[in-house]
Order: sequence, then C-alpha cells, then structure tokens
Amino acid sequence: MAGAAAPLTARSGRVKAARRLTRRADRADTRLFLAEGPQAVREALAAGCVREVFAVADAGGRHPDLVAAAARAGAPWQVTVRQAIAALTDSVHPQGVVGVCHFVDVPVQQVLGGHARLLAMCADVRDPGNAGTVIRCADAAGAEGVLLLGNSVDPYNGKVVRASAGSLFHLPVSLADDAAAMVDQVRSAGLQVLAADASGEADLDEAADAGLLAAPTAWLFGNEAHGLPDALAAQADHRVRIPIHGRAESLNLATAAAVCLYASARAQRARP
Amino acid sequence: MAGAAAPLTARSGRVKAARRLTRRADRADTRLFLAEGPQAVREALAAGCVREVFAVADAGGRHPDLVAAAARAGAPWQVTVRQAIAALTDSVHPQGVVGVCHFVDVPVQQVLGGHARLLAMCADVRDPGNAGTVIRCADAAGAEGVLLLGNSVDPYNGKVVRASAGSLFHLPVSLADDAAAMVDQVRSAGLQVLAADASGEADLDEAADAGLLAAPTAWLFGNEAHGLPDALAAQADHRVRIPIHGRAESLNLATAAAVCLYASARAQRARP
Repeated sequence: MAGAAAPLTARSGRVKAARRLTRRADRADTRLFLAEGPQAVREALAAGCVREVFAVADAGGRHPDLVAAAARAGAPWQVTVRQAIAALTDSVHPQGVVGVCHFVDVPVQQVLGGHARLLAMCADVRDPGNAGTVIRCADAAGAEGVLLLGNSVDPYNGKVVRASAGSLFHLPVSLADDAAAMVDQVRSAGLQVLAADASGEADLDEAADAGLLAAPTAWLFGNEAHGLPDALAAQADHRVRIPIHGRAESLNLATAAAVCLYASARAQRARP
Repeated sequence: MAGAAAPLTARSGRVKAARRLTRRADRADTRLFLAEGPQAVREALAAGCVREVFAVADAGGRHPDLVAAAARAGAPWQVTVRQAIAALTDSVHPQGVVGVCHFVDVPVQQVLGGHARLLAMCADVRDPGNAGTVIRCADAAGAEGVLLLGNSVDPYNGKVVRASAGSLFHLPVSLADDAAAMVDQVRSAGLQVLAADASGEADLDEAADAGLLAAPTAWLFGNEAHGLPDALAAQADHRVRIPIHGRAESLNLATAAAVCLYASARAQRARP
C-alpha cells in the first residue's frame, strides 16, 4: 500500500544521490537535475523526463494528478521526510515535491530545423532569475526555442528552473559555447538576428513601424551587467534599442526581452 | 583633512542608528531609509534627499563625483570600515557606499495633479524585486508616477531600492492603503484604468489596434501569486490580457508590467 513504507530520510542513498544534483558538476556527470514544486513536476511529467519524485507524506493527497502521472511514467513516488526534501532545493518556500529529471536540452539543429519564426538567444546571461524569466517570456510570446550561448548560467540551476515556471519543459532549449558561430548558423537557417542593444541604431518602435519585426527573427540578448560584446552585436543584422522615455538608464534583461519578444510576436501576427 | 579621522566602526552610534533602518518599523518611525551602491547614492543625491553617506575608505577616490555632490548637499561623507557598511545592506555584493535618505514618496494628489498620461498602480505587490522592477520599467516607459496600493511591499526595503536601479528617485511614487478608492480617484483625474488580468476580456494587441491605449492610462497590476481581486478588476474601465501565444501559463508581474507600459508608451506616441 502506498505510504506504508517508512518515509525516506536525508540518510537514504537515493536522497543523497539527488542532493548531489544541486551541484552543477554532478548534474553534468549524470545529465540529471531537480525540478521543485508541483507546477514544475507536473510540466516535467508531461514532458516525459521525470525519473523519480520525492514528496512529503501529504503531497500525494494534495496532488493526485501528479501521483497518477508519475505512475503512468513509471517514475517511483518516494515519500520523504520534509527536511530531506528541503535539502534538495534552495527555495525559500519549498513546496514538498521534487522531481529528478533527465536533461531536456536539444541540439541546435532541432531548434533551427522546424522553420522557426521567433527565437531568443542569450549570450553570457549569468543571473539565474533572468535566464529562467527569459525562457518563460519566450514561451509566452510563442517563440519556438531559446539558445543559451557562451558562458551562460546552467539552465538546470534550481533558480533557473523555478523562474522558468515550467517553460523549460515547454519549448526547446539549446546550449552552445560559440555565440558567434551560432549567430551565423541562425542566419543561415533564414532568421534575421536582432541584437537588443541600448546603443543600437534602430529604435524598437521605428523598427516595428518599418515592418522589420514581421520577418522571422532571433533576438540576441547580452549579459545583464555588460550587455553584448561589440563584435557579437556587430554580427547581428540590426542593433535595436528599446526607447527610454523617462530617466531610467536601461531596462533589466528579463523585462527588455519581454518587450522585444512581444513586439515581434505582435508584428508577426499583424494583419497586413 | 578628509580621511584623517579613524573610520567609523560597527560600534559607532551613527552606524548603529543607520543599521536600524534595515527594519521597516524603524524606517517608518524616522522616515529615513538606506540606498546602497554608487548608482543609487548618485540618484539620491541628485534628488536632494541624502542626509549622510557611509563609504569605505577607497570609495571617495573611485567616485569623486559623489564626494562632491555630498559636499554640495551638506551630507557628511563618513568613512566607515567595510564590515560596518556590509551590515547596512543585504546585497550579495555590497559596493561600499550607502546613503541615509529621507523618504521620497509624495501625496497621491501630486502624482495626479500634473496631467499624467501614464501611471503604474500595483495592488498588493509583495515581492521586492517585482516592485522595484515595476518602478524601473515605469520610469523607462515614461510614466509620470507609480502608486503602491493596499498591502504592497515597503518601497524603502533595500531590495526594492536596488531593483529600481535609481528610478525610485526619478519619478513620483505614492502609497495608499485603499486601492478601490484610489482607482476612483485616478479615474476622476481623467485617466482610464486598465487592469492587467490574465482572464481579461480585451487582448492587449486588439486594444492597441482599436486605439484604446492612446488615451491617458493608469495600468493596475495585482499580486504576483493571486492577481487582482475580482472586485478591484471589475472597477477598472477594461480588463486587458497579454496574449499567451505559447504554453506558458502567464508572465511574471515585472515582465507583464513592462509589456503593458511599453504598449501604452508606443500607442501614446504613435503618429495618427
């Protein structure tokens, strides 16, 4: 009977193995990561990438859909003491359910092969909240994929997974070290590359008015503190600045990405 | 001679008094708060609200403009040991300069009196990063003010100040407990109220196409987890949803605010 066995504790070998996945090196070795909270675990189960679930005793009663989905997926539902679950996440408010998931990133060719019309590319994004929020915004705006380039934060970092609010499991995410090569490859696949750049020569509203945003587009976003390297920005088809109407110096990365991606989504759907 | 006196330590009465301002109750009692980092202190000095500055020994050499501005403002520049400065902020990377500032919020009438065309209103926003980012986005989009309503986070919380990236000192911010009364007051001042609401009857793009966004507008945003209370959303002139083209459930508050505010900024500036 489910729940009859004693809950796993922090000393359990399975919990210890899962806890190692809070470290990037161990994630890279095993190609496994942790998704915390019912929403993330639900989306991960729907994506078919969950290997096992650790859950506090009453989580099954609160989320019968998750128990059923885990059973269908053949993923063991491991009742686990609360403190052991808490040790698997850096969330301030752990929600009592953690899934051990297989990596979900895909080869770049898979993102580019399907006649993508809207992509988000991040070069050297370092803040996990920003990276996760860009993935969420790209999903919401209907983008077909996200490319994390250069020295970007690990998308399997718990804070990225949490900030993506499930979107990491919705749309293809691809990783590539060489940002410059990737810009070329994206253009070869028939997308224009628009660099979001505070000193860009084109204004986002003017670009929309001129019809520039209606074409298949990959937006290129830079590091939150340093922006895009000049050489990489120069490689883009256009460098586009978001107009600053007030006295703010800039927008932060995630809000800038939201404004750019939604401007493209609107332009690509506008009736002529 | 500047720097000749021994640096203040954490035991100094002035530092202890400043440290108490990390607590909301002490901020409310004194109507003083802390702004951390050279950017925030620069904007606070420009806004004329700095009472004194605590700075590590080498900060003056790195930021001579701040030393000069503090002198012009009559704000003492207190050289202080690094650990004492660090205790004044919860920043992961303290930047060695902290200003003690007078509260900058203004009466609502001051925000509404100047023929405002674009405002951001937040009801029950709880996350300090969201609140600060909304203030920054409102500034960037050219809004004339921000109203924090109901049980919203204290705008003088260190994380709000940091996330606003100086914008707290740029545009008028006003606080009011009674969100419903404030919606009425904003409408009486001649602005339409648009509630950002995932289940709204109007789509943001359609609203833009129909010319709805060109009118003077106050956007009303709800709590990050629970959205807007039904009664408050019903009070707005229209409830507007951001189209979700992909599989994300929603956008987060700060990115949703950025998309809405920039949609209005574009519509209000469009040539007919």
